[in-house]
Amino acid sequence: MTSATLKTPLAIAIAAAAVTLSGAASAASHTLEQRLADLEARIVVAEQRANDAEQRAEAQADGRLSADEVDERLARVERQASGEEGFSFNVYARSGLLLGEDRKSLPGGPYVTPAGSLGGAVGRLGNEPDTYAEAIFNYRMRFDNGARAHYRTMLAEGTTTSNDWNDDSNLNVRQVYAEFSDLPSFTGAFENASIWAGKRFDRDNFDIHWMDTDFVFLAGTGAGLYDVQLADNWRSNFSLYGRSFSDFQVNREDPGLTGDTDSLILTANNYVGNWQWMVNAISAADNDERMLDSGDTAADSGWHTMVAYHGDSFFGLGDGNFKVALLHGQGLGAEVKGIGSNGTLTEDAHSTRVALYGTTYLAPSWRVAPALMAEVSQDRHMKGDEFKWATANVRLANEITQNFEMQYEASYQYMDLDQGEGGSAVSGDFGKLTIAPTFKPQVGGFWQRPEIRAFASYTDWSEELNEFNGSFGSEGFTGGQWSFGVQTEVWF
Amino acid sequence: MTSATLKTPLAIAIAAAAVTLSGAASAASHTLEQRLADLEARIVVAEQRANDAEQRAEAQADGRLSADEVDERLARVERQASGEEGFSFNVYARSGLLLGEDRKSLPGGPYVTPAGSLGGAVGRLGNEPDTYAEAIFNYRMRFDNGARAHYRTMLAEGTTTSNDWNDDSNLNVRQVYAEFSDLPSFTGAFENASIWAGKRFDRDNFDIHWMDTDFVFLAGTGAGLYDVQLADNWRSNFSLYGRSFSDFQVNREDPGLTGDTDSLILTANNYVGNWQWMVNAISAADNDERMLDSGDTAADSGWHTMVAYHGDSFFGLGDGNFKVALLHGQGLGAEVKGIGSNGTLTEDAHSTRVALYGTTYLAPSWRVAPALMAEVSQDRHMKGDEFKWATANVRLANEITQNFEMQYEASYQYMDLDQGEGGSAVSGDFGKLTIAPTFKPQVGGFWQRPEIRAFASYTDWSEELNEFNGSFGSEGFTGGQWSFGVQTEVWF
Amino acid sequence: MTSATLKTPLAIAIAAAAVTLSGAASAASHTLEQRLADLEARIVVAEQRANDAEQRAEAQADGRLSADEVDERLARVERQASGEEGFSFNVYARSGLLLGEDRKSLPGGPYVTPAGSLGGAVGRLGNEPDTYAEAIFNYRMRFDNGARAHYRTMLAEGTTTSNDWNDDSNLNVRQVYAEFSDLPSFTGAFENASIWAGKRFDRDNFDIHWMDTDFVFLAGTGAGLYDVQLADNWRSNFSLYGRSFSDFQVNREDPGLTGDTDSLILTANNYVGNWQWMVNAISAADNDERMLDSGDTAADSGWHTMVAYHGDSFFGLGDGNFKVALLHGQGLGAEVKGIGSNGTLTEDAHSTRVALYGTTYLAPSWRVAPALMAEVSQDRHMKGDEFKWATANVRLANEITQNFEMQYEASYQYMDLDQGEGGSAVSGDFGKLTIAPTFKPQVGGFWQRPEIRAFASYTDWSEELNEFNGSFGSEGFTGGQWSFGVQTEVWF
Repeated sequence: MTSATLKTPLAIAIAAAAVTLSGAASAASHTLEQRLADLEARIVVAEQRANDAEQRAEAQADGRLSADEVDERLARVERQASGEEGFSFNVYARSGLLLGEDRKSLPGGPYVTPAGSLGGAVGRLGNEPDTYAEAIFNYRMRFDNGARAHYRTMLAEGTTTSNDWNDDSNLNVRQVYAEFSDLPSFTGAFENASIWAGKRFDRDNFDIHWMDTDFVFLAGTGAGLYDVQLADNWRSNFSLYGRSFSDFQVNREDPGLTGDTDSLILTANNYVGNWQWMVNAISAADNDERMLDSGDTAADSGWHTMVAYHGDSFFGLGDGNFKVALLHGQGLGAEVKGIGSNGTLTEDAHSTRVALYGTTYLAPSWRVAPALMAEVSQDRHMKGDEFKWATANVRLANEITQNFEMQYEASYQYMDLDQGEGGSAVSGDFGKLTIAPTFKPQVGGFWQRPEIRAFASYTDWSEELNEFNGSFGSEGFTGGQWSFGVQTEVWF
Repeated sequence: MTSATLKTPLAIAIAAAAVTLSGAASAASHTLEQRLADLEARIVVAEQRANDAEQRAEAQADGRLSADEVDERLARVERQASGEEGFSFNVYARSGLLLGEDRKSLPGGPYVTPAGSLGGAVGRLGNEPDTYAEAIFNYRMRFDNGARAHYRTMLAEGTTTSNDWNDDSNLNVRQVYAEFSDLPSFTGAFENASIWAGKRFDRDNFDIHWMDTDFVFLAGTGAGLYDVQLADNWRSNFSLYGRSFSDFQVNREDPGLTGDTDSLILTANNYVGNWQWMVNAISAADNDERMLDSGDTAADSGWHTMVAYHGDSFFGLGDGNFKVALLHGQGLGAEVKGIGSNGTLTEDAHSTRVALYGTTYLAPSWRVAPALMAEVSQDRHMKGDEFKWATANVRLANEITQNFEMQYEASYQYMDLDQGEGGSAVSGDFGKLTIAPTFKPQVGGFWQRPEIRAFASYTDWSEELNEFNGSFGSEGFTGGQWSFGVQTEVWF
Repeated sequence: MTSATLKTPLAIAIAAAAVTLSGAASAASHTLEQRLADLEARIVVAEQRANDAEQRAEAQADGRLSADEVDERLARVERQASGEEGFSFNVYARSGLLLGEDRKSLPGGPYVTPAGSLGGAVGRLGNEPDTYAEAIFNYRMRFDNGARAHYRTMLAEGTTTSNDWNDDSNLNVRQVYAEFSDLPSFTGAFENASIWAGKRFDRDNFDIHWMDTDFVFLAGTGAGLYDVQLADNWRSNFSLYGRSFSDFQVNREDPGLTGDTDSLILTANNYVGNWQWMVNAISAADNDERMLDSGDTAADSGWHTMVAYHGDSFFGLGDGNFKVALLHGQGLGAEVKGIGSNGTLTEDAHSTRVALYGTTYLAPSWRVAPALMAEVSQDRHMKGDEFKWATANVRLANEITQNFEMQYEASYQYMDLDQGEGGSAVSGDFGKLTIAPTFKPQVGGFWQRPEIRAFASYTDWSEELNEFNGSFGSEGFTGGQWSFGVQTEVWF
């Protein structure tokens, strides 16, 4: 027994006595009387200590913070800190320099080729000239009845100036919407459904990151329902999106006479297992009054469909993932990626596109991501035009340290573009090879960001393409040239 | 006694012995000697256990986290999570589609009628064509001396395009101000006062939500004091607001010759019980050099006053609330809502407006909100003009489930607008009936948001109104027509 | 012994008996038998209480929340609340009114004098006419391997309108960058280095706050390394910044023919003790094709250097701080503050600038901050031009209560500006005296914000300066005049 554990003065005094007696108690010569007195003294001390302990425990139990209360208060601030409730912030951003051999900015970007205006993207690595930044502000609410609401707004700016102050900046509010889920009065097929309205990017858009192209990019202002459970393995989304076709010319003689209409897109997405089937019906009343350059009649309606497979392996060959989609559209649906966004299509326009990509590890520190996209379309802007293009792209990354990897990209595009009577007709190809030493806080996959990269690209294309409208052939940009730069890319 | 509660090996050994002895101790045949030995063994165990308990309690008390420390750290992060300190985010936003019978966007909004340019709003339900979003970023600070500061900035965009990317977007920084409160050196009448400066919406603006109109909307750049306690039941606010009157024409012969001035508004608000009395003096030096279209002299000063009652019942008839105000202004004060914001008023302009609304429950699931606003004004933009308008609006909501209600709105406006010599003179009326199935995370009142609604409206107006400047009579918008749409409305 | 501390019914019953026995035990007439029985009863109670205490302690230890877990969860949300991880928000903002004796807005700002376009700032107190607000959104990440990343984006708007809605607002995205630090694979000289890329203000810019001028302001799009440790006491930064020189005229005959190039700035900063040595090399290919008004050849390269001392006393005279720098640049480097930002400099341009300031307390409640800046430059925009200016500024503050201080500023500038052949040549001086009653949540230094101030300034200048291009001499702004206003200034 050590007196160090005794706290109250009274206890100390008694304990001191007890220690004396206790030592004596081990002697065989003690009388019973002495041993009893000793025990009586010791039990007084023990009882006092028990009192102290119980009072102390009592005081703790009476304290303001029970474990349950602490847990509950912590859980609440944790939900807020994580963005599960209240405010949260998301970002996509890229910013950097793209310079030619003459140390001047070059045109660039995945849509730089003549096929770019038709959606024919090429590889983006070492090919982007801009600062593009999205700032997403979210606010999530949880109600007493268990319902949840999510408000989102997105500011975005894209610019090619390197200056920090830019008199004609280009800020856009790209999203403003609310979405409700966990609604107690939604039952049956609607039990897990959510409902939304406002201006937004559709939740189910998906992309080939390395070519900066969505398989489908559906966006606009409207309303819809997600995750209606039509059968055990079948869930569907239904939405109406509007887009504005503004200030188009309607009369060749009077250029000031313009029209406006709405492109309305009724969309349904069906998911069964790994399969997705999307159908879109598009209508834009009076868009046929629009004056096309060709004199042909613009479409006032269209349809579009996509069948896609979302694979959870690398084409069945190994770990990784892959996505493949076949898209077809007619009339206003012939713009197969930006659904309903193009009002200059003829009523006979039709396009068919295939797109796919996959990612896997070839070896513990070597990742590869091949991608392919090809489209044929006809009667797009005038009867008789015909456009064919195909892009093959492969991104390769070699993880060298925890914070550094070498990235490589090879991109090739073939295009045969015939604008029809009175327009140009070119065919040829484009190729780009890029090497990009890349820093990351932590390597480990194609989706790990942020990255900071330096890069050198060699780009070449058929001379014939310089005759087509666009950047090609413009001053100092005629092919067979190197470009260099630095860039950051961030998302979270 | 179960040995399971004993932890230290020593204690276990002793306890094992004790158990043996303890069992023996109940036998009557024991000698005193045996009973004493038994007790001595038991008290050794008891003392050891008391030591253990005290050491354990000691260790807990010495631990890093006392209940007080946890409470204090939790309270601090809770203040930050709630926005009481640090960053917080607020929003008002609406976004949706307003389509006519031809599936094309329609003009709309509460200010769509000819009286709209005079402030004559009508009901907004099923009548709004735009995406308007405010993002409010707050930062609150608390200082060691107890003083508090609040910084607020507000970004806002309004647009009628449904597209997510819009080359002429319209982002504005509508507020940038700081406000200090709880200042230790503010005492006496100033004890609860706060002081502010910057660009802002006045704190005491209040509105008729269903017609998207403020009773008064005072905003601009300046400074002021809130909540000066002039007597027990009387508190007052005093502010100076500046607004810019820019680039107005000053010479009929030389249209390039323009002038600029500041509209300075000295404002005082007095609160006594439920009553509010506001007075405003407005001065804009040299605004009388402004060239009015009529040739009349523009006012370079004005005054404005409002008496309001903020009721905490439904006009004394039941639970709910109501607000009623009478406003009058002369010269630059003749714009009675947007105080000091209109520089084109003549020196003789005078306006009188009455506005009121109330909300209550008619039955457990039926809410009603009637509102009324009427104004007469004369000599507004020229000697001899005369404008009269009156709007009656009622919003009705039937809460059907926890997440769904039917909303109805009837809106009627009478107007008699005479622009004076050389202008138009029209009179007539406007009516709108709307039905809006509405989803909410949780129903329960007129101020519960977010909402997602679909709607159908029938709108009609006197044909004569088509002759007045404005949207009326423009292509496809001549009255007697249906409109349809979807919309979200959010605030938090 | 009080029975109040006993909880279980069993314990109470036994204790009641024990109390009785205990009272009896103090009587000398007890037999040993009785004393033994008494002790046996008491030890049963003591053992029961020990059991209870141990079970209770056990239950607490088994509870969900150990002190360590609470501490860890608290530390995590504290890191998020403080912005050490996740989102955080920073601001610089000012907003107010600057009015002349006629109650109309005046031109103003630290760059209001003819020397302003050359960087010759004067004191800003009571001299700023605008609302300028920066909103900085940060997101900090910490990775499993210890690496950290910081993403920052900055929105900024500057406007002189006092209105809350402004059709030509001027929002800019001034920064979009990512910076990584604590990278495990950075070792040796790079152990504490960080790497960045994107659009940004350089981390090491520093300013004379009272004249709203940076010693150097380096900003643009690029990449770099900070804090490379070259020796024990020597650390260096290396960056490449690009800036855009856009749409400059290249042909006198064909004004539509324009050129673009990039101003590329290679910069290195070296820190040894309190000393800083900065060197910059600037190159802008083909900028010599730019058509200068003078007909001279524009520079396509330049260099710039700065030696600075960051003092931790008031010039060695007392507590406080001071900074002093000597800058020199040639060609494109002759814009010595905004490095590489001016493409209209001739190849022979050269500038030398000295700048310094200090802060200290003169007495417990009197602070003073003198500042000085002077520059001579030649052959700037044409061969033969010559510009000399020097500004002396002193800010004085008298802390009167916890929340109020009187601020005073005296600012004087001498300038001798000769634009060379065909341009104007003026010399003269400018002076401003300001008194500003200032409210603060807590006084206590030149860097304490937010502030709310009213002010009156008397400003005068040589009449000769009215002949130079600029605000001077414009309507109602000819010198010898008072201005008044209110303003808030905020940063955090």
